[in-house]
Formats: sequence, C-alpha cells, structure tokens
Amino acid sequence: MQGQMLEPQTGAMETRYAKAVIHLRAALGAEGVIEDAAGRAPFRDPFAPAGQDWYEPGVVLMPSSVEEVQAVLRIANEHKTPIWTSGQGRNNGYGGASPRVSGSFVMSMRRMNRILEVDPVSATALIEPGVRFFDLYDHLREHAPHLWMSVPDLGWGSIVGNTLDHGMGYTPFGDHVASQCGMEVVLANGDVLRTGMGGMSNSRAWQVYKRGCGPNFDGLFMQSNYGVVTKMGTWLMPAPECYMPGWLQLKNDSDLEILLERLRPLMMDGTIANQPMIINAVCAMSAFTQRDAWFTGEGPMPQAIIDDIASQPMLGAWVMRFALYGDEQVVARQRQIVEDALGTIPGATLNFAKYDGRNLPEFENPHERVQAGVPSIALDQMSRWYGGESGGHIGFSCAMPITGRDGATIRDLVRGEVNAAGLDYSGVIIVSKRSMIHVGLVVFDTANAAQGKAAYDVSRNLVKTAAQLGYAEYRSHLDFMDLVADQYDFNNHAQRRFGELIKDAVDPNGILSPGKQGIWPADMRA
Amino acid sequence: MQGQMLEPQTGAMETRYAKAVIHLRAALGAEGVIEDAAGRAPFRDPFAPAGQDWYEPGVVLMPSSVEEVQAVLRIANEHKTPIWTSGQGRNNGYGGASPRVSGSFVMSMRRMNRILEVDPVSATALIEPGVRFFDLYDHLREHAPHLWMSVPDLGWGSIVGNTLDHGMGYTPFGDHVASQCGMEVVLANGDVLRTGMGGMSNSRAWQVYKRGCGPNFDGLFMQSNYGVVTKMGTWLMPAPECYMPGWLQLKNDSDLEILLERLRPLMMDGTIANQPMIINAVCAMSAFTQRDAWFTGEGPMPQAIIDDIASQPMLGAWVMRFALYGDEQVVARQRQIVEDALGTIPGATLNFAKYDGRNLPEFENPHERVQAGVPSIALDQMSRWYGGESGGHIGFSCAMPITGRDGATIRDLVRGEVNAAGLDYSGVIIVSKRSMIHVGLVVFDTANAAQGKAAYDVSRNLVKTAAQLGYAEYRSHLDFMDLVADQYDFNNHAQRRFGELIKDAVDPNGILSPGKQGIWPADMRA
Repeated sequence: MQGQMLEPQTGAMETRYAKAVIHLRAALGAEGVIEDAAGRAPFRDPFAPAGQDWYEPGVVLMPSSVEEVQAVLRIANEHKTPIWTSGQGRNNGYGGASPRVSGSFVMSMRRMNRILEVDPVSATALIEPGVRFFDLYDHLREHAPHLWMSVPDLGWGSIVGNTLDHGMGYTPFGDHVASQCGMEVVLANGDVLRTGMGGMSNSRAWQVYKRGCGPNFDGLFMQSNYGVVTKMGTWLMPAPECYMPGWLQLKNDSDLEILLERLRPLMMDGTIANQPMIINAVCAMSAFTQRDAWFTGEGPMPQAIIDDIASQPMLGAWVMRFALYGDEQVVARQRQIVEDALGTIPGATLNFAKYDGRNLPEFENPHERVQAGVPSIALDQMSRWYGGESGGHIGFSCAMPITGRDGATIRDLVRGEVNAAGLDYSGVIIVSKRSMIHVGLVVFDTANAAQGKAAYDVSRNLVKTAAQLGYAEYRSHLDFMDLVADQYDFNNHAQRRFGELIKDAVDPNGILSPGKQGIWPADMRA
Repeated sequence: MQGQMLEPQTGAMETRYAKAVIHLRAALGAEGVIEDAAGRAPFRDPFAPAGQDWYEPGVVLMPSSVEEVQAVLRIANEHKTPIWTSGQGRNNGYGGASPRVSGSFVMSMRRMNRILEVDPVSATALIEPGVRFFDLYDHLREHAPHLWMSVPDLGWGSIVGNTLDHGMGYTPFGDHVASQCGMEVVLANGDVLRTGMGGMSNSRAWQVYKRGCGPNFDGLFMQSNYGVVTKMGTWLMPAPECYMPGWLQLKNDSDLEILLERLRPLMMDGTIANQPMIINAVCAMSAFTQRDAWFTGEGPMPQAIIDDIASQPMLGAWVMRFALYGDEQVVARQRQIVEDALGTIPGATLNFAKYDGRNLPEFENPHERVQAGVPSIALDQMSRWYGGESGGHIGFSCAMPITGRDGATIRDLVRGEVNAAGLDYSGVIIVSKRSMIHVGLVVFDTANAAQGKAAYDVSRNLVKTAAQLGYAEYRSHLDFMDLVADQYDFNNHAQRRFGELIKDAVDPNGILSPGKQGIWPADMRA
C-alpha cells in the first residue's frame, strides 16, 4: 500500500527526516516544531478505530509566517521529506489533521491566524489559514457588527481549510467555495502566487472580483496538493432585517421524496437562499441524546424504536432546518410560499421563528444559531451516538441532483448497507441551488475495534456501490481517497492522469501532501 | 514583436504550414478547411483599423466532432503549427475570431453546434461550443418553454465561447462563469478530460454539482490556451411568475456616485438579482442614432450637445437598466425597496414595466428583451456611432468594487483620456453582486485610419494609467493582451510565470492559441 511507503522509522527515509528536522528547528524555533508524542496527539485522526495502525502524524510543524512556510518547503525539497498541510486540522469524519502517508511531517497553519482585513463597505475579509470561524466571528462582533459570516455546524475549524475542502455553511453564503474571492499561495518551490486580481500588486478588486485576466487558478488549490494557501478572501453578508429559521417535520420515511420534489423549485428560484439540511430521526436525536438512552441491543436499532424517536416533540421520520433572510415583507411572502409548498405535505408540521437580524439573541437552539452564522460546537454531540466520549463517525458524502428519485436511491442504498453492517443509519442531506450532498454519517464507537472495522468496511464498500449508480463522493476520508479517485473512471481516469501531470509540473519532488484526493507524485505512483 | 513571429509566408514556417494543410484536408475534408481569402474574411478582426497589418487569420479549420479536433491537434503537434481557437468568433471589440499570431491556423467550432441535452427537471443544458445563444433559445422555445436562458447584448455569439471569456448576460444567471457546470476538454495531446463530476463515466451530477473530488480544473480552461473545450454544461432558469424590467434616468453626471452607493446594498442582498447596466447619454443614444445626427465637428462632442442628448425622452446623464424576477408579491415589494433607494435620488426618474414571465410578448425595447434572456442583435447599432457601417469599437474593461469613489475615478480617467484623443466617451458599467466592470466603449470609424490609430493608442495607454490606480482589465483585445498581463505584476509577475509553467506542462509544443492573455509557449517567450 502506498500509505505505508514513507514510514520514517525505517532506513534511508528515517535519516532524511532526522536531517530535515535539524534544519526545521533552526528555521521555525522550538515553538514551531512539535516532536513529542503528547504534542502530536491532537493531530491524529480523532476517530481512528481502536487497534488500527492508522495515518500517524510525524513531527508537527507550525510556521508563523509566509517566510517560515517558504523555509519549510525549501528544507522539504532539499531532503525530499513530504509535508501534509492542514488549517486547523478539524476535518473530523475525514481524518482530521492526520496525513495520508503515516509518519510524514504535518504542517499546521494554526499559528498563522491573523485577520488581515475586513472591508466594511464591500463586506469582505482577507484572512490567514489558521483563522477559526470563532476568531472571525469575535472580530466581526467587535469591529463590524453589521456583518454576518457563514459557519459550518462546528465552529472550531479553519475557514480557509473548510473552504479548500469544499465545505459548507448554512447562511445564504454557505457555499464557501462560491464565497471565496482571491488567494495567496506558496508553491512547492517557495514562489508566492496571488490569484485573480491579486496578480496586480495594488489591486482594488482582489476581494471583490473572483477572476483575473487569463486562466483562473483558484480551483487548483482546493482539495489538492499543489500549493499552500497562506491568505484567502471570503465574502461576508450584511445583517438582514429579518431572520426567520424554519423547522419542517415529516411523518413518513417516503415523505423525503415528496419534499425533495417540492423543495427543488424553491432552491432554484432563491425562495430559500440558504442550504437546508434534511436529517432522519436518528441523526436528529443524536444532537440531544446518546443511543443507549433508546436501545442497548446488538445490531441496528429496530424500526419500532426509530418510530418512537421520530414521534418525539419536534422530530419526525425526517426533519428539515432552513431559514429565510431579508426584508421583513419579502420574508413574510416567502414564508407563505414555503408553507404552501412544504407545509401541505400530508402529516407535515412546519414552524418558524423570527428574529431581528441586526440584533440577534443568544440562541438556545443550535440549528437556529448555525443558520445565523454564529459558531459553536454544540452539534459535536452528534458524533457521540455510540460510545459517548469515544464516539466517532465517518462521512460518506455523495453529490446528486435534487430529486425524489435520487434521494430515495441513496437513502435506501446507504441505509441498507449500514444496517447490514450492524450499524444505525444517520442520514443528512444538505441542499444547494442545483444539487444536494447526502452525507451518510457512519457513526460508531472508536473504542470498539469490531464496530470500527465494520464502519470503515461499509463506508469503503459504499464508495463502490454508490458509484455504480452514478453517485460520486465530493470529499472523503483519507482511507478512501484512492478508492474514490478510482471511481472517476472516464477515459481511463483522465481526471487523475491530468491531476498527476499538473502535480509533476508544480511539485516535482512530490513534497506537498502526497496522496491527497488520490493524487500521488511520480515516484510514489503505483 | 511576438505577434509577427509566425508569419507563414516566410521560410521554414511556410513549409510546415503547407505540409500540415495537406494532412488537415485529409482529416477534415473540404468542408473543414477554408483556404481562400473570401472564406477566411469573416474570421478577421471586424474592427481592425484601416491600413493596419493586423492579426490575420491563416487557414481556417472547422472540425465537426471531437475526433476531428483530436486529428487537428495531432497534425498541429507533428508540424508544430499553432492553432487559434474560437467558438463563433464574435468576440467583437476584443478581436473577433482573429488570432494573436498573424497567419496561424484559426480553428472555429461553428460546426460543432449540437445541443446534447436539456434536462427540464434540473434546468441544465449540455452543449457544444458552436451553439449560439440564438440556437439554444430556439431549442428551448420548442422543447422546454418553461425555461429561460441568459444572453449577452448580442445573440450571435457562442455560449461556450462567451462563458470561457468570462462574458456576461443580464438575467439572474448572467454571471456565465458562475452558471457553468462541467466541461469536456480536448487537451493538446489529444486526450479527452471531463471536469467535475464528469470524471465519472455514469455520473448523475455532472451538470448540477460544479466540482468533483479533488482539484477543480474548470478555471484553467477559461481565458486560456490550455485545451479545447468541446462540451459545457450551463444552468437555465425556470421562467419567473413576474418579470419587471426597470429604467432609471439620472439628471447629473455626479449622480453616478450616489447611484453606486445606493445600489451596492441592493446587489449584495439580492434585491436586484440580475446584472444592471449603467450607461451614459452618448452610449444610450448610440443604440438609436448615429453621431452625425447630433454633431459633425472635429474632436469630442461638446458638453452642450451631450446635455441635449441627455435631456431626450427616456435618457439622462446616466441611465440604468435592471430587472426584478419572481413571485409577483415579492417583486412588488422589491420594486418598492428600489423606488425608496434609487427613485429618491434628486432629479431621478424611475419607470417599471411588468410582464408575465411565462408568457412573454415580442419585445420592442431591446433592453427589456435582453434582460428576459431573449437573444437579438439590435444593440449591434451601438458600434455604429462613428462611420455607420464602418463603425467599430474597442472594449477597455476594468473590474472594481461597487463604490461611488471607484466609479467616479474610472469615469474621469477614461473620459479624460478618450476626449483628449479626440473621441467621445461611451461609458458602460455592468454591476454584479460584489464588483462592477467599467467598459469604456472606445468607438471609432474603422475606415478612418487616424481615428483608428487614436482609438487603439488611447486604449493601450488606459491599460497603464488605470493599473496605476489599481484597476486591471478582466478581458482584453488581442492587441493589448501582453500589456494587460504586464500589469499583473505581483511578485515579479508570479501569475504569468505560473501560467507559463502550466502551459509548458500541458502543451509542450505550444500549439494552442499562443499569446492568449499573454501566455506564450517556451519557444516564443521574449
């Protein structure tokens, strides 16, 4: 396996790493080089299954400036020692900060955490990759309280890291890639590139116009190993007059199909401008309780118990959170349109709350909080369904059209395979303007070796069975990156072959995150 | 000059071209190879100034399939004969179909004009690069009359070509790059790449989810010379219940600043969801009359006459077209918001029309037509301000934030320089959600050699003076491509150097559109 190729404990590679570390200590200082096991522990895959020899971080590097990043890459090129980069490394469910190649250096951008600029007029921010959602939120409250940001369910992650991995939030600016505008990238050879209008030293438009004059390189540096992003622009949102979160409860499992068919036109025409999240009863309950409050038996939870959960207050076979934003009268009319379209699904219950977007309360409901762009970690609870503190999950995450047929197909496939593996099905559908992502949250107890193995085995198998039906993952755990890339099979894997061509051109020594999304440098390809 | 380097009339290059043509005739047949001057004439720069030796198309190639494109590239690689590609070649104001390097082969995609799929459910289309806006419009009227498309002012161009050059239309889907979803590209070596979810042979999501799993390559193939796009997905728009075009007239030149400040929040929050176009009196009048109806003297038109034009019915010092779309009650409220914000500018006049978006009339007003996504060529008249049939224009097109300060700065700069060159100032500002493009339509009579020279000289100079103020072009005429690229100067032109690195990797023989946007293959670099 490629993943084991670079164990630094053995032979020539060990020597190269040891030599590089000497230079890295000189370049970054003691603060910037973490060698002891305790210091490295937070960079492990937080949901690694018990007893697995699994994607171990080597020495952790923490540069504090562009110049230090350049120094790291120079040393890595000299010693041919790969470096796996992350922002905060909170990509939990997909491997966290841990590297694809066990033992490689891990470069964390946590110390590069400056908010370089917030433009209150054009409502943009320019940030470094260590800036967490929490950090920008605090900054805005103090310096630009009329601006909202978009956050994912957990606020501890890096804004840049989340965006680069095609992450999502839940305000109208929740498509974080679409809200990204301009980057600075340190290339493998240490050269510094600014994309888009940033190509001009004194540009007035770097954070407002997304392209330059010529090819657009931003997409190259997302989900890739072609460079290290050291600055990124992102768009903020003027606080709306009215913020109206909605909560839809559906009685029957098959109502999911009806919902998707009725929701699609509302997404396309912008009636609902944020990214609704549809979750099943198990997933919804996992935000509040652990599994053993309901069932302690073996195998997947019986349907009668799931039905019991679904019948609890505010729950259902499926529930959907979403929100409306804007002028009060426009929102009132949009609410009516949504009620006519979705509230009329037989057996459905639809509730709205209403807030002054310019004077938000302290939310108790985590779903209302996240859709207002207020970061928290309340929903981390959802990983604790099995095993409490040792609970974990894998994200199995496919993209598809917003149709009842596609929703039912992926639900049935994932539920069937996950249940057959003895696990509960925790289903999440995040809906965008033209597509949706079904995230099978494959939840398990990391302390239970057999259950962990079952969870990874079924996730791995789903990559293949979903691909047979035309569904590909949009993001993946380290353990399946090669397998996911394998499914992109058009014209003898033209996409991967092109990715390798670019890799060889921009990083000839293969030092940057080898194996990321299945792209390996020439000397590590199978 | 690099531009003269490949004249096929001389020496070794002549021999290479002659040999290649023999093979190209065999590969494409008589229909696919246009050698005579009359047949090549439509591929010249339509606005080339009189008496200039100017970007002449060599033999024109018209492949009719992906396989024929592959054959062309194979022959071009064998003989090292560059090929300049265009969709329809209607990029008027920027050079039309003519090549950067005089005498190179011109590959036109006009015969690859199939509409491969329209998905009436997800409202997407998959098209070939020869499909004109007119073609897709006719197809939709027949097969999917509930769907609207977005069109630029002139409907004769290629949808793919316009999108790849970062072109714009005027419905809510008028940011054509943002509405693009998935591509098929023939690389210089003949390999066929599909981007995004198209990397999977049987994907259900190629036209609905804009990315794949891994780096996103779409941006590489826009405004570039890295590949030949042979298929592209684009998003359509369900016809809105209500279509309400608006027309704002401003009395004073300085009202532009007030307008931009009041417009910005309406763009950011989506109250106005299309791309408004703000034009000055001369530009507005040029849609209806020629200059000599107003003034026949030398030098720029006197202010008194401009004021006279501005005082005509429906005109003003500046006018803005825009439109509202959607649910009738929402649109009614949005109209009120716009009236409160813009109709209250002192001296302003604001009018609205209202149509059933599902049952549009035959529009007489070209501005109402284009904002409903109905293609025409009525506004081609705007190029005829000077010289009637021999009239032409150059687009000088900068990106900037939506602020009064930026709008006034670029207006004053362009007007000052254009007037000093003896020409009228025809100003166009196209406004998007976070940025705007100021297009100085530098109009002139192509039959008047001195005026043509003045027009190109001033446009060239504006590239530099605008850059000193922080404004870069987003698109440019062939004649300024190198100069525009020169302005992207950050870190010793890191953007161009990276562009060249990619160029050398993906097209080592430099056969694809050398010089496009200032990116040259290794053996043609200065």
